Amino acid sequence: MSDDALVIFTPSGKRGRFALGTPVLTAARQLGVDLDSVCGGRGICSKCQITPGYGEFAKHGVTVAENALSEWNEVEARYDRIRGLKEGRRLGCQAKVMGDVVIDVPPESQVHRQVIRKSATQRDMVMDPATHAYYVEVAEPDMHEPSGDFQRLAEALRDQWQIDGLTAEPAILARLQPILRKGEWKVTVALHRDHHGQPRIIDLWPGFYEGRLYGLAIDLGSTTIAAHLCDLRNGNVLASSGLMNPQIRFGEDLMSRVSYAMMNPGGDKEMTAAVRTALNSLAQSIASEAGIDPTQIVETVFVCNPVMHHLLLGIDPVELGQAPFALATSESLSLPARDLDLSAIHPNARIYILPCIAGHVGADCAAVALSEEPNKSEDMVLIVDVGTNAEILLGNKDRVLACSSPTGPAFEGAQISAGQRAAPGAIERVEIDPATKEPRFKVIGSDLWSTEDGFAAATAQTGITGICGSGIIEAVAEMRMAGLLDAGGLIGSAEQTGTARSVPTGRTHAYVLHDGSAEGGPLISVTQGDIRAIQLAKSALYAGARLLMDELGIEKVDRVVLAGAFGAHISPKHAMVLGMIPDCPLDKVTSAGNAAGTGARIALCSIAARAAIEEEVFRIHKVETAIEPRFQEHFVAANAIPHATAPFPELSAIVTLPDVSFNTSGSGGDGGRRRRRG
Amino acid sequence: MSDDALVIFTPSGKRGRFALGTPVLTAARQLGVDLDSVCGGRGICSKCQITPGYGEFAKHGVTVAENALSEWNEVEARYDRIRGLKEGRRLGCQAKVMGDVVIDVPPESQVHRQVIRKSATQRDMVMDPATHAYYVEVAEPDMHEPSGDFQRLAEALRDQWQIDGLTAEPAILARLQPILRKGEWKVTVALHRDHHGQPRIIDLWPGFYEGRLYGLAIDLGSTTIAAHLCDLRNGNVLASSGLMNPQIRFGEDLMSRVSYAMMNPGGDKEMTAAVRTALNSLAQSIASEAGIDPTQIVETVFVCNPVMHHLLLGIDPVELGQAPFALATSESLSLPARDLDLSAIHPNARIYILPCIAGHVGADCAAVALSEEPNKSEDMVLIVDVGTNAEILLGNKDRVLACSSPTGPAFEGAQISAGQRAAPGAIERVEIDPATKEPRFKVIGSDLWSTEDGFAAATAQTGITGICGSGIIEAVAEMRMAGLLDAGGLIGSAEQTGTARSVPTGRTHAYVLHDGSAEGGPLISVTQGDIRAIQLAKSALYAGARLLMDELGIEKVDRVVLAGAFGAHISPKHAMVLGMIPDCPLDKVTSAGNAAGTGARIALCSIAARAAIEEEVFRIHKVETAIEPRFQEHFVAANAIPHATAPFPELSAIVTLPDVSFNTSGSGGDGGRRRRRG
Repeated sequence: MSDDALVIFTPSGKRGRFALGTPVLTAARQLGVDLDSVCGGRGICSKCQITPGYGEFAKHGVTVAENALSEWNEVEARYDRIRGLKEGRRLGCQAKVMGDVVIDVPPESQVHRQVIRKSATQRDMVMDPATHAYYVEVAEPDMHEPSGDFQRLAEALRDQWQIDGLTAEPAILARLQPILRKGEWKVTVALHRDHHGQPRIIDLWPGFYEGRLYGLAIDLGSTTIAAHLCDLRNGNVLASSGLMNPQIRFGEDLMSRVSYAMMNPGGDKEMTAAVRTALNSLAQSIASEAGIDPTQIVETVFVCNPVMHHLLLGIDPVELGQAPFALATSESLSLPARDLDLSAIHPNARIYILPCIAGHVGADCAAVALSEEPNKSEDMVLIVDVGTNAEILLGNKDRVLACSSPTGPAFEGAQISAGQRAAPGAIERVEIDPATKEPRFKVIGSDLWSTEDGFAAATAQTGITGICGSGIIEAVAEMRMAGLLDAGGLIGSAEQTGTARSVPTGRTHAYVLHDGSAEGGPLISVTQGDIRAIQLAKSALYAGARLLMDELGIEKVDRVVLAGAFGAHISPKHAMVLGMIPDCPLDKVTSAGNAAGTGARIALCSIAARAAIEEEVFRIHKVETAIEPRFQEHFVAANAIPHATAPFPELSAIVTLPDVSFNTSGSGGDGGRRRRRG
Repeated sequence: MSDDALVIFTPSGKRGRFALGTPVLTAARQLGVDLDSVCGGRGICSKCQITPGYGEFAKHGVTVAENALSEWNEVEARYDRIRGLKEGRRLGCQAKVMGDVVIDVPPESQVHRQVIRKSATQRDMVMDPATHAYYVEVAEPDMHEPSGDFQRLAEALRDQWQIDGLTAEPAILARLQPILRKGEWKVTVALHRDHHGQPRIIDLWPGFYEGRLYGLAIDLGSTTIAAHLCDLRNGNVLASSGLMNPQIRFGEDLMSRVSYAMMNPGGDKEMTAAVRTALNSLAQSIASEAGIDPTQIVETVFVCNPVMHHLLLGIDPVELGQAPFALATSESLSLPARDLDLSAIHPNARIYILPCIAGHVGADCAAVALSEEPNKSEDMVLIVDVGTNAEILLGNKDRVLACSSPTGPAFEGAQISAGQRAAPGAIERVEIDPATKEPRFKVIGSDLWSTEDGFAAATAQTGITGICGSGIIEAVAEMRMAGLLDAGGLIGSAEQTGTARSVPTGRTHAYVLHDGSAEGGPLISVTQGDIRAIQLAKSALYAGARLLMDELGIEKVDRVVLAGAFGAHISPKHAMVLGMIPDCPLDKVTSAGNAAGTGARIALCSIAARAAIEEEVFRIHKVETAIEPRFQEHFVAANAIPHATAPFPELSAIVTLPDVSFNTSGSGGDGGRRRRRG
């Protein structure tokens, strides 16, 4: 009989020979097999459960004898008695290799499960969150070799988990002695360890702590704050929640908030206090939704644009409102939560804020880069994160460029006559029959088109209240396709278009989408002003993308990714009819959903990802739109619908746009020249 | 003509050849000459002033021509115009070497002046405080290469001062942008840099900051809190101040405070709050005494015993009251001052607390070791820091041992019938005529003996109020020398001693030192109880020293250092008559004054010293008196006056003690058996 044995792990297929008597957990670790353990192999945590297979394994060329593992031992028996062990399962730290064996690691014993699921792709991600719980057994004090309890705990973490340089605040030191004694020198320590500084104790519990640690990934937008509550062991999202950014009352867009800070002494502090209060209430509500205590939240990751970033940190954003748009700090930040007054979560919780790319290209754009990885793309990808400001990334594995473009809030339904947020009752889809010029639409909250039976009943509750961002984009594009709008963006009169839905409003016209006035509801129409607002927004977006394309010297991109909560709802065809994005095969235009939020979750789950994006941000080449004369040229040239700066072979293959021109009155012709940033 | 020249610096004598055109400051730096500079050689700070010598220097073998240095330049002229430059002085950063030259560095241009002056020895110390101001010029923001202002500041510190890894808190980041712009991209940054963690910004000012940075060195004792306010540029002490530890109301000695914490839930928090409040008011008063703003205090170093250490940190000291006397933490601590609620000083000030040696041997003992350096001593030195607890160090460069001994507060005048703190009116010196048995004494506040003319007038203001620690030690020793007391510690009756000053008090006797009752003052006598209290204290002290001598296997020490504020006032002869310390040549018994406070000042001025003591503390061998049976044996044997455990050849050479015995009644014989720790 040999004194070693072959061990094969499934599903990984990893294999190796080990001395008889080697615990399965040890073998797994030596082979790099993904087998969980929290207690360090002491038979306490039960995370390392495995299922040995017995009999003939032709595929692996091995036969496993009944006694291939050591016998069921006392630790396993006790564990089974108290908590129950599934049929056929063993504890990997207790079962020892006694002969050739095939061992299956069930999914719940794997740490490194894929956690980030996106509509288009799934990403396998290794969980390595900054905050993690460690169980240790600490040496008792010895009068003859006096050392502090803290020093013996540090020694235990060094010996048992190879963690060096432990630190703790006085408030933690004050709790250490009673906890060590209550746990009889066994303790579970929640440690924060990232690439910025030494490991520090966040919390500690006597004995083995069964509880979970949670983190928040927060996308702090100018308009909305979106949060995901994640389990830090496996990355699972327990709850997602959002609320309006209360800073809206100080100004709708970024520039108005910067102006508010400039005009009102202490205005920046008001806005800082407002957003911090909102973050505390968001933490409380998301925790209560998930049924956990908010103090179980030990980490929070933020992504946000530079103005939100500064206001969150308590920094006056005034410099961001004027050239050269200098950030107070651009690199990532690792802070105690109390520095940002986040008192609702764990008192020792830590904050991580992704790095900003430039004065107008924030941590939210960095998060999109982390999520969408243009730097790993083989083909040339254009990523636009559509919000109040659009962040634009263009590149491939060779080089990535970034800029920000001041689209304004029109794409979000603001500054639109009948505009509203994407909420039940809002028109989100629009179709216009090119022959009859009659519209049909869908509202959020119902799957029926307005022309279908039962639509009235289905929307009775919410009513038809307005039109949201995706609705206005579709409406404008459909109006253009139906010949209600010319390439210059003018709405034709009833005579010119042949439909009574085109009604005069002063010197211009509007197209009536829905008239609810008979039922006491609103009249929802698309006005010439709405068209101008959308033209401004889409010109800014396109001009930004085009500027980056110029910089790379390319005329076309291989694919387009629409990101942003709103990006998820934009129809690629309509976006292209509008000329929001360059011409591209329609099946190459995909949505990444809230890519910034996804990036925040990735950073929450992995310090390696944090290090990677910090490094990548240095490599991204930033282009400042505000001072680039070509941006203005592209912006003006992009005013037409679709823009006139490049041909649309891909779009032309599927849509023929009517060759109409309503420019008889000359009105509205200056619409494309106004622009704001914000 | 050669293209390099000989440069000789005085007083160091360092010399080297440098290319013509080399600035004097550069030459000094390359030779390691101690020439100050704060602005990095930009002609702003004027710290690098030097005095060139001209003519024949036979000693150095060089003749210095009038044009040996470059001509007086615009920067020097401007400096002289605005602030005035002393006759013959040049700015080292402006004057360039143009020929062989001898350059004197005046004392005020040297950084590394000796700063710690002690009565016995002077110590040269290199100033390298953790907090230091740096002047830098920061690159302006560039839209095309966007980076945060903070990142450009960090780069400037890296380039101009070789300081890497800068960090700052959000509150500092919030102030950065306006300050950089106000100073036109020139800024002075106060940085905290120690061996625990990354450099962090404490404060910053636009342009070149003329102000000073200060630090506090605090000896936090059970009874008194003593503080020195130091200038962090040169280590000078601007003011020294002290106050009573307000924790006294919770218990006079350490053990009573530990008991208070045990008996009263939240009692530890009360004591923590009390000491922190006192520290804030001490910081305020010492700053006002020195005429500075307390927020200019950017660092504080603490030394204290373990119970004070834990209570300062907000840690319940209960474990220190029972075996195995486990410290919550033993290593040094580097903390923000706000963690200890020290709100009176700079809001970003830092705290450094020296390491503890063991559960009974605290950071105060570590500070004594740092100040007295037994580990560098060639001869065998015994260092006793006499306070409520005595800390004892014994050793030489080969090995150092430490222990703590529970002397109790008798040496400080507490638990003595007429005892009081060392304050005006207290008897501090005593002599008793062996023939007449009549005493004479001095009181604090007057230099006259009580038998001298004018004594009554000199003490009229203060009165004669009691007897302090040094007074009671001298009184007891003098009583023994005068035959009023036998070796067992019994006071003889009037018949036995032949003086009416021996008066009966119950079953024992007391010796009347001073009867002020006629003038309405107190009767000050030494009672049998007082003798017992002193016997307990000195037995504990001697037993501790003896235990360490046993451990090293030695019968005698080469020298004795008495430390502690009180140690400064003990007369070596009287200490030896009492048997407080082992027999030793009298001229080898010296006082180190408040060595713990000196150690705190050294740590305040030098991070190298902090690193050194942290390392040394690991090497010091700790002996726990509380569990050592031999300590009890020594303690009992040391009860006699002087102790009976070792001969006193050195003492016998100068004093003959009367061979009396008053032990007729048997009373008081158990006095030596009681003992407490605290």
